[in-house]
Amino acid sequence: MFSWFTIIDYAGTFAFALSGATVAMRRELDLFGVLVVSFAAATAGGIARDVLIGATPPVALANGHYLLIASAAGIFTFIRADLVEKLSNPVQVFDSVGLGLFAVAGTAKALAAGLTPTSAVLLGILSGIGGGIARDVLTARVPVVLKSDLYASAALVGGAVVAIANVLALPRAPAMFAGAALCFVLRYMAIRYGWHLPVARATSNDPPD
Amino acid sequence: MFSWFTIIDYAGTFAFALSGATVAMRRELDLFGVLVVSFAAATAGGIARDVLIGATPPVALANGHYLLIASAAGIFTFIRADLVEKLSNPVQVFDSVGLGLFAVAGTAKALAAGLTPTSAVLLGILSGIGGGIARDVLTARVPVVLKSDLYASAALVGGAVVAIANVLALPRAPAMFAGAALCFVLRYMAIRYGWHLPVARATSNDPPD
Amino acid sequence: MFSWFTIIDYAGTFAFALSGATVAMRRELDLFGVLVVSFAAATAGGIARDVLIGATPPVALANGHYLLIASAAGIFTFIRADLVEKLSNPVQVFDSVGLGLFAVAGTAKALAAGLTPTSAVLLGILSGIGGGIARDVLTARVPVVLKSDLYASAALVGGAVVAIANVLALPRAPAMFAGAALCFVLRYMAIRYGWHLPVARATSNDPPD
Repeated sequence: MFSWFTIIDYAGTFAFALSGATVAMRRELDLFGVLVVSFAAATAGGIARDVLIGATPPVALANGHYLLIASAAGIFTFIRADLVEKLSNPVQVFDSVGLGLFAVAGTAKALAAGLTPTSAVLLGILSGIGGGIARDVLTARVPVVLKSDLYASAALVGGAVVAIANVLALPRAPAMFAGAALCFVLRYMAIRYGWHLPVARATSNDPPD
Repeated sequence: MFSWFTIIDYAGTFAFALSGATVAMRRELDLFGVLVVSFAAATAGGIARDVLIGATPPVALANGHYLLIASAAGIFTFIRADLVEKLSNPVQVFDSVGLGLFAVAGTAKALAAGLTPTSAVLLGILSGIGGGIARDVLTARVPVVLKSDLYASAALVGGAVVAIANVLALPRAPAMFAGAALCFVLRYMAIRYGWHLPVARATSNDPPD
Repeated sequence: MFSWFTIIDYAGTFAFALSGATVAMRRELDLFGVLVVSFAAATAGGIARDVLIGATPPVALANGHYLLIASAAGIFTFIRADLVEKLSNPVQVFDSVGLGLFAVAGTAKALAAGLTPTSAVLLGILSGIGGGIARDVLTARVPVVLKSDLYASAALVGGAVVAIANVLALPRAPAMFAGAALCFVLRYMAIRYGWHLPVARATSNDPPD
């Protein structure tokens, strides 16, 4: 059955794959490299979550749709990077959409697997930021998800809404929608108005390594 | 039993470990660091594959032979790096051999674990390129397997031969041999004649990050 | 029951999280980024070990204490980085403590899971150095655990003590204490007196990549 959950999941996959492809294009990878980074950005968070809850093979590998969707996003970006880039700061916008969708879906799946609410939120955060971390590690840069204005913390808020609703026995679907929307709004406002958490300031003159 | 499959597997392990050791030497790691990168380059793809299909502990950890083989390659390279380097561009040649061997073996193992042909080819590609990705992530550079001439795509071709033979119920052994050979030839010709997939060109003046 | 094993485990978690937070601070991540790197540095080795032996969900996720401890270390470092930095080279000292504790605990857990002594020592090394690798990969640098004076090799020694005691049917607790102490002393002396393994010297003029 093609439930609304599936649709959200596939939309998030497409959004993250676009983000991965955009970063890979800037690194001047070849076509296949762009597809690998697209697939990793789209699925690494969910794959890590599934491995950690013992749900192997991960759904992103067992179900061929994820590969198709990520590849479509990668090929589209490869051909029409100009179009994808033309939107102002498209990587961040695509990231924000995927972030909210994946954080709530990951939290819900971990709860369904019997994890505690706290652990489920952790796995929700991982589902949300794992793709971005994989994308940035594969392109040899410090993951922006660890520095960006309210990124991982927005995922935390989205996941927490789902976990709290679960504890209170509230219906799951509206909680997921509310969590994803809240996460997206937080992240989007943070980009637009420069909201951010306190940032570490180096206290020594030592170089970073 | 020491089957031909085992021999191929061990030869691929040695080849990838040499490639890992060579890169680690250039980063001026210490002896143990060289051994860790050798082992990671030799086994990370297979370990990731085993974790993803739920076959834990991964064979590369459960079977001590892989550690012995990777360590032998690492120590040999550490002592005689001059010899290993003297061959023209040895990293790429060793990589090409291991790539073909691991891509077909990974695809075959995933098929045996009951995955669909598409997922099995994905895991074959991961088996082939996972070691190179681990090697390059551990030495803080963009994985060459995502930029190099027909690298991951050669693994795809090798794995696809095995998967197609499986779908057509053709015998496995010759399909694996053909797949590995085709992958190696593709990759070797790509190095020699500069064959490559289309490469992304940055479309904006934004810096990569 | 709050056994001495649990106390050692939690102390190691705190030590590694401090090390992760210190590196993250130098990269000027935001508060949440510092917490993520703290948690990764504290738990990545143990999580990888648990995934590899099929013990999912990993204890570091299932048990909320690890998150609390790592977060406490991260927040403390975030607020009082000056204090943490004032100790001479705190990252290395914290690393040394955590290294010994995690190497022996990881080896013991792998032995309990039925792995061979060799594989158990490998997983002990991974438990010890996995957090440091995650910390450094997340901050885009070559893992210091692969270059530092007797780092991974000290973990090997600590794990080997536990594995050998297991083979000889000696009692586990004193072997773990001895292994952790030996690992710490080796590493600490290496820092203090510059002990090190042979270091690779590049034999060509090729750039590292």
